[in-house]
Amino acid sequence: MHPSNPKSKRSRKHVRPGAAPGTLVGDPRAEKSRIRVLAFGPDRCEEREVTDILDLRQLLEAWPTVWVDVAGVGDVQTVARLGELLQLHRLALEDVVNVGQRTKLDPYDEHLFLVTRVYDAANGHDSQQLSLFLGERFVVTFREHAPDPFEPIRTRVREGKGRIRTSGPSYLVYALLDAVVDLHYPALYRLGDEIEALETEVLGRWSETTIHRLHSVRSRLRGFRRELVPQRDLLHTLLQEELPCMSRSVHVYLRDCHDHANQLVDLVEQYREVSSDLVAACLSQASQGVNATMRVLTVISTIFIPLGVLASVYGMNFDPTTSPWNMPELRWRFGYPAVLAGMLVVAGAMLVWFRRAGWIGANGDARTPAPAERS
Amino acid sequence: MHPSNPKSKRSRKHVRPGAAPGTLVGDPRAEKSRIRVLAFGPDRCEEREVTDILDLRQLLEAWPTVWVDVAGVGDVQTVARLGELLQLHRLALEDVVNVGQRTKLDPYDEHLFLVTRVYDAANGHDSQQLSLFLGERFVVTFREHAPDPFEPIRTRVREGKGRIRTSGPSYLVYALLDAVVDLHYPALYRLGDEIEALETEVLGRWSETTIHRLHSVRSRLRGFRRELVPQRDLLHTLLQEELPCMSRSVHVYLRDCHDHANQLVDLVEQYREVSSDLVAACLSQASQGVNATMRVLTVISTIFIPLGVLASVYGMNFDPTTSPWNMPELRWRFGYPAVLAGMLVVAGAMLVWFRRAGWIGANGDARTPAPAERS
Amino acid sequence: MHPSNPKSKRSRKHVRPGAAPGTLVGDPRAEKSRIRVLAFGPDRCEEREVTDILDLRQLLEAWPTVWVDVAGVGDVQTVARLGELLQLHRLALEDVVNVGQRTKLDPYDEHLFLVTRVYDAANGHDSQQLSLFLGERFVVTFREHAPDPFEPIRTRVREGKGRIRTSGPSYLVYALLDAVVDLHYPALYRLGDEIEALETEVLGRWSETTIHRLHSVRSRLRGFRRELVPQRDLLHTLLQEELPCMSRSVHVYLRDCHDHANQLVDLVEQYREVSSDLVAACLSQASQGVNATMRVLTVISTIFIPLGVLASVYGMNFDPTTSPWNMPELRWRFGYPAVLAGMLVVAGAMLVWFRRAGWIGANGDARTPAPAERS
Amino acid sequence: MHPSNPKSKRSRKHVRPGAAPGTLVGDPRAEKSRIRVLAFGPDRCEEREVTDILDLRQLLEAWPTVWVDVAGVGDVQTVARLGELLQLHRLALEDVVNVGQRTKLDPYDEHLFLVTRVYDAANGHDSQQLSLFLGERFVVTFREHAPDPFEPIRTRVREGKGRIRTSGPSYLVYALLDAVVDLHYPALYRLGDEIEALETEVLGRWSETTIHRLHSVRSRLRGFRRELVPQRDLLHTLLQEELPCMSRSVHVYLRDCHDHANQLVDLVEQYREVSSDLVAACLSQASQGVNATMRVLTVISTIFIPLGVLASVYGMNFDPTTSPWNMPELRWRFGYPAVLAGMLVVAGAMLVWFRRAGWIGANGDARTPAPAERS
Amino acid sequence: MHPSNPKSKRSRKHVRPGAAPGTLVGDPRAEKSRIRVLAFGPDRCEEREVTDILDLRQLLEAWPTVWVDVAGVGDVQTVARLGELLQLHRLALEDVVNVGQRTKLDPYDEHLFLVTRVYDAANGHDSQQLSLFLGERFVVTFREHAPDPFEPIRTRVREGKGRIRTSGPSYLVYALLDAVVDLHYPALYRLGDEIEALETEVLGRWSETTIHRLHSVRSRLRGFRRELVPQRDLLHTLLQEELPCMSRSVHVYLRDCHDHANQLVDLVEQYREVSSDLVAACLSQASQGVNATMRVLTVISTIFIPLGVLASVYGMNFDPTTSPWNMPELRWRFGYPAVLAGMLVVAGAMLVWFRRAGWIGANGDARTPAPAERS
Repeated sequence: MHPSNPKSKRSRKHVRPGAAPGTLVGDPRAEKSRIRVLAFGPDRCEEREVTDILDLRQLLEAWPTVWVDVAGVGDVQTVARLGELLQLHRLALEDVVNVGQRTKLDPYDEHLFLVTRVYDAANGHDSQQLSLFLGERFVVTFREHAPDPFEPIRTRVREGKGRIRTSGPSYLVYALLDAVVDLHYPALYRLGDEIEALETEVLGRWSETTIHRLHSVRSRLRGFRRELVPQRDLLHTLLQEELPCMSRSVHVYLRDCHDHANQLVDLVEQYREVSSDLVAACLSQASQGVNATMRVLTVISTIFIPLGVLASVYGMNFDPTTSPWNMPELRWRFGYPAVLAGMLVVAGAMLVWFRRAGWIGANGDARTPAPAERS
Repeated sequence: MHPSNPKSKRSRKHVRPGAAPGTLVGDPRAEKSRIRVLAFGPDRCEEREVTDILDLRQLLEAWPTVWVDVAGVGDVQTVARLGELLQLHRLALEDVVNVGQRTKLDPYDEHLFLVTRVYDAANGHDSQQLSLFLGERFVVTFREHAPDPFEPIRTRVREGKGRIRTSGPSYLVYALLDAVVDLHYPALYRLGDEIEALETEVLGRWSETTIHRLHSVRSRLRGFRRELVPQRDLLHTLLQEELPCMSRSVHVYLRDCHDHANQLVDLVEQYREVSSDLVAACLSQASQGVNATMRVLTVISTIFIPLGVLASVYGMNFDPTTSPWNMPELRWRFGYPAVLAGMLVVAGAMLVWFRRAGWIGANGDARTPAPAERS
Repeated sequence: MHPSNPKSKRSRKHVRPGAAPGTLVGDPRAEKSRIRVLAFGPDRCEEREVTDILDLRQLLEAWPTVWVDVAGVGDVQTVARLGELLQLHRLALEDVVNVGQRTKLDPYDEHLFLVTRVYDAANGHDSQQLSLFLGERFVVTFREHAPDPFEPIRTRVREGKGRIRTSGPSYLVYALLDAVVDLHYPALYRLGDEIEALETEVLGRWSETTIHRLHSVRSRLRGFRRELVPQRDLLHTLLQEELPCMSRSVHVYLRDCHDHANQLVDLVEQYREVSSDLVAACLSQASQGVNATMRVLTVISTIFIPLGVLASVYGMNFDPTTSPWNMPELRWRFGYPAVLAGMLVVAGAMLVWFRRAGWIGANGDARTPAPAERS
Repeated sequence: MHPSNPKSKRSRKHVRPGAAPGTLVGDPRAEKSRIRVLAFGPDRCEEREVTDILDLRQLLEAWPTVWVDVAGVGDVQTVARLGELLQLHRLALEDVVNVGQRTKLDPYDEHLFLVTRVYDAANGHDSQQLSLFLGERFVVTFREHAPDPFEPIRTRVREGKGRIRTSGPSYLVYALLDAVVDLHYPALYRLGDEIEALETEVLGRWSETTIHRLHSVRSRLRGFRRELVPQRDLLHTLLQEELPCMSRSVHVYLRDCHDHANQLVDLVEQYREVSSDLVAACLSQASQGVNATMRVLTVISTIFIPLGVLASVYGMNFDPTTSPWNMPELRWRFGYPAVLAGMLVVAGAMLVWFRRAGWIGANGDARTPAPAERS
Repeated sequence: MHPSNPKSKRSRKHVRPGAAPGTLVGDPRAEKSRIRVLAFGPDRCEEREVTDILDLRQLLEAWPTVWVDVAGVGDVQTVARLGELLQLHRLALEDVVNVGQRTKLDPYDEHLFLVTRVYDAANGHDSQQLSLFLGERFVVTFREHAPDPFEPIRTRVREGKGRIRTSGPSYLVYALLDAVVDLHYPALYRLGDEIEALETEVLGRWSETTIHRLHSVRSRLRGFRRELVPQRDLLHTLLQEELPCMSRSVHVYLRDCHDHANQLVDLVEQYREVSSDLVAACLSQASQGVNATMRVLTVISTIFIPLGVLASVYGMNFDPTTSPWNMPELRWRFGYPAVLAGMLVVAGAMLVWFRRAGWIGANGDARTPAPAERS
């Protein structure tokens, strides 16, 4: 089993019990923030990397929809100033900085705040926190790392295909959430392939490492479920409730995205069931193995131990010269052949008994779990 | 255990995270679409295979109810043009093409869209996706394969028996769903027969393959439940909610169909319980077997090992000529018979002890799991 | 374990997927219908066996409450004509004929239809389907077999005791359902006695058959739960919902009947818990038995095997005449007693070790699961 | 395990399926009823034992609150006449007489009827049924046995302390229910002490009886839960619903009582968790013990069996005089010491192997579960 | 396993069944009360230790918000007089004195009463009861012990930072609850570190103590869940319901605090899953170990026992001089080498058989669970 860190130390909350709410405590190990702005209207779009936050104000005034993407949340100064400019709530900003939040949806008066985790296709086994603010005219996304999983969406905006440029910030939020959910597909399919390989292994010859890999697969499935179920619930809330800044026109798209999340959760459950079965099959085979081993030991021991005692008896040194009662058999003409024959009879009787008891097969061979039988 | 593919590779979603919604990505391995139209009114009906989609327009105008059946959804062109003609939603069409959807019900403004899986009686172990659109005057069904499980319904339309010709598209949808649900009966009954055979086997003599067949049965039962439970829930939604194009007059029929789905789910649960019991019975018998084996080994070993030691002692070569203390027994008149008697006494005492401890029966025979006792 | 048929073949649905709803398919193996009518008003009652269904019409017109009891539902003709006369819904009649329905309640416009299963006191291990129609002025009951579990109710009607003659069809339905529920009491109490006997057995000496009887009891308890839980839910629905033809004045009686159903379900759950405990106790005792067996084997083997080796060493035939190094012990004056003493020391040391390790009791006796200790 | 009677035979329902409802069937084994009346107003109170039920009428007219306490419910005559006088519903009276009812609350038009079970502090392991009617001006309690658990409440009425005399029948019902709930505290605390003692035992040396006592504790906890959970739910219903004769002014007190019931249920759950852990710990220790036993057996056997074979080889009687090939070793100068040395080498090599495999500790001693290690 | 006291004796309710409600029974072992008052308004604050309760009256009149903190609840006199002054309900005061209450929220007419448990950072393994009254202008907190976990909040009031001085008693309650919830973070993180250490141990070499520490961790996790889940639910109620004295303006803060509680519950669940996995991994390794041990025993025994019998046969003392049939082999020229060769053949054949059966590896070495393989 590989150590799994359900809550890695890096994402631990920097909390001082009793501290005032909305205190932004920077994580000195976090990356510096990098702000990319993508402003667009039905006809045009403008893409720019922003260093001075004041540049943003003018973009926000000029364009109908502005997407501000912040990579790296350790730079508390920048986050705080951005929050001030866009009037984001202090409590929400605290959650942005304290990565390791649960997937959640908090409506504030002027904006909608949501947090979720993005499966990190790049480094394959971890996820980063995505914090997202939706205002009337802007979307702000905060991510922990620089690598951008949303590049295909930028491309869609740049190329102006589909409804993305014309449908405002709500549709952009949908597109982002859809990408977040769909990122799980390739990862889950890879896991499915691994489960299939493990299945083949279990049916054939498996070893300790098979079990460890099964445990690792199950632990990763738990991780996926931990991410997907809250995302599904978040999408359900988005569909059910009247929320600020969220246009009802994207409902039909959110429903589709909700379907995908449901499908992924189903897939995870199916994989979990199959992997449970495989673990059970391994355990059952192992216990059958012990059983078979025991049976062989019993057959061999119970046949040979009495024979050994018989042989030992005639190895005793009682002096036949001192008494006619002392082992006269040793001087009989057919004493030795008779003993050998007696041994054969005892062994044969036991074999018959064992065969009747079902411990050895009809071919007189102890039922060992030969590879062919085991699969 | 046979490899089970809860989500076979063929039905995997062709998804590019971040792609625009409603993108129709064709599956090059899918069959070409074949469109059969069955248009009918109370008095007459017309059946036709359509190659030019424009022919459809005129049928739709001429008849009160038109059932368009499309076999094969890989031909994205055809699906898209059909969708345009009937004004089907792009997101729904995406689900038609991406087979492997969950059973679901999506109301759109102009039509009702539902997806479910049809148990494939023909190739017996798999199911295909059925996508169904219900409009004011038409029903469109998309299926993955050519073999048609709905032939009996066509016959009912052709013969004009019962209410099918007079009750409009809603009743046709009911008839299709009822067929989908009822297709599980023969398959489940076959499974029931297999479970009964396994039960007889477990009560008699079973082997490793019995366990494997039990696991396979349980895996198939899981598959049935995975199909039936969402279908039952879909029927429940159809009964509970006011949906576009769905006439309330078919409610009494849908309730009947809902009952069938409930009955099937109950049947699956009962079979699951019985199969669980059988697995438990096997495990318990196996562990009883180990127990019995251990007991025999113990009885034989504990009786004969001490006897062997006794015999070995009198096989020692201490020289009686050098000392009167060296094994004088060897020269006694009744030394040998005394040792043999001592052996019998030891063995007898042990047998008495074992009988008191309940390890061997009153008839002095070790309690082995003879076939008759085991069942 | 006895083969349990959760869904016996006889009660399998005769379904052709895609067939029109309301098709009555007769079961050729079913008994011929026998129709008994009991018509009554506050003052008088008339009881008659009806062969011509048309006779019924006149009874229905003449009496305020008419109870039509049909035994045997394989005679599809009779069922269909009765349905026509009383305007019973075709779908409901289909359920009457297809025995093996779930307990359910279907309100139709003109009547209430309910199906449940009657525990068959006569043949003790099976149940038959009871289909019941409640109209404004009639109650129709369809049963599979001739033996009538409702005779006490007939007697109450005949004798005119209590409210049964004055309270109309709703009260008659209550009386029938109450009898259906109460029929489980004696059967469950018998099962309770069996569980108690098994408990005594498990505390004393139990064998394989105890386990099998426990499994059989658990399987029957599952059967009872499968019948009782839906009946309880049906009664709950009757209490909660406004239903056609069901008078609110019997609510207080239905509540009492609902209480009985609840009590029975509780009883089943309690019995299930106790039987689970007994199974666990058996398994635990069996595993303790293996443990004790192992310990005895270990004690005996580890004591005697080294002694045997020691004896074998002095049974070697090295020639003491060829070398002073070859087993000079054999010629020592006290060689033999020394070896015997050495054996005793080895055996004693091992006993001390085993006692310290807790494998044998203070009285030097290996801890075997003697009967007295086991209970 | 002690036989537990979840539903003792004494409390079995005397039911004849199909009998008319409200039939009072007396239990000939029940005690004769003894009726004690406590009538009180804000200023005074009168306590009297009543033999003629007609005396009651006059008390009921004279006092604002009358508490009629009936001990023994087998005297069906008395129960029936009391019911007539106070206009209690026949169905409720049937439940009074048929002890063994579930905890429940039935509102009738003129009064509230509730049944619950009173933990019987006196005979410590059983509970009796308490049936309670609350009318506008009276409270009637029926108990199975004479010993009165409500004496402290009588004292409070007599002394006129607190609100009990001034707050009417509803408050009296609260006081009774509160006493019923609180009676579980001492019993549960005693069980807690037993669990603690068992915990200490499991950590040290435990035997079969520990397991049996654990099972008995778990069975009693199940009994407590079976009583407490319905009582908690009954109190919840009393708090939530508008009920006849129940004054809202006692709600704040009922809430407190509901809290107590919740606390008791929590306590039971905690005890159950701890006892589950203890059972698991026992099982795990037992299985560790088997493991250790196996290891010792293996170590001893695998070391000594080969040595025994070696010794046996040189105990063979091949005649060295007939052939130079026949065991010349027997005549070598250092044959015997060489064999002994060979034995030591074999034993030493095995010990090294076993130590590497982790079967024996660094001190060369097989890892036996010595008492100190086990705790 | 360390004895865990889910309900330590100290916190047991001092209840006399049947006693009048609101009776304050002092716990003679409890500490004397110490009352600290912190009164504040937007501009100033006053901190004082109060000995005469009448001093309080004047503070309550003078300041907009007064926080009365009482440490030690055994001094029933003080509690009662405080209750009288502030008109706190008798039932609530009873809960204050009877520590060991469940986390709960009771709205009274004039004030809100809530009870919860505070994780005691100081003595690390126990928690104390916090009872809190919220009135229009005051907050009263009762704690069991003197050490004050709320010092950081006092500091915030003194320094007047943030909204704490200006937002009234509701905000103070939020601040207190937030501190109560956040106190679990460091404790849980410590537990997380311990789990990680255990994980490393399990992957390498673990012993009995590893299991015991795992059990202890699981028991502590259960304790955390028992505290956190009710706190989360209490916060949920505070968010959902309209409660007396609770200002809606602190909702956004309470939501944040609710999030923290949710996060902590999630964390506990994750830790529980990981620890379950570790326990399962230990059990599986232990059972693999038994398996391996069995296999070695079988291999050695089944090879050497037959060899021993063979050797014993030729150790028999049949007299070759009396009969040509008596062991002529002993005088053959190559008798001895032939027997040795026969032994090698038998041993070799068995090794080949065992290798084919998969019991020993290709390198002829029995598959023992060497440390490297085990991890």
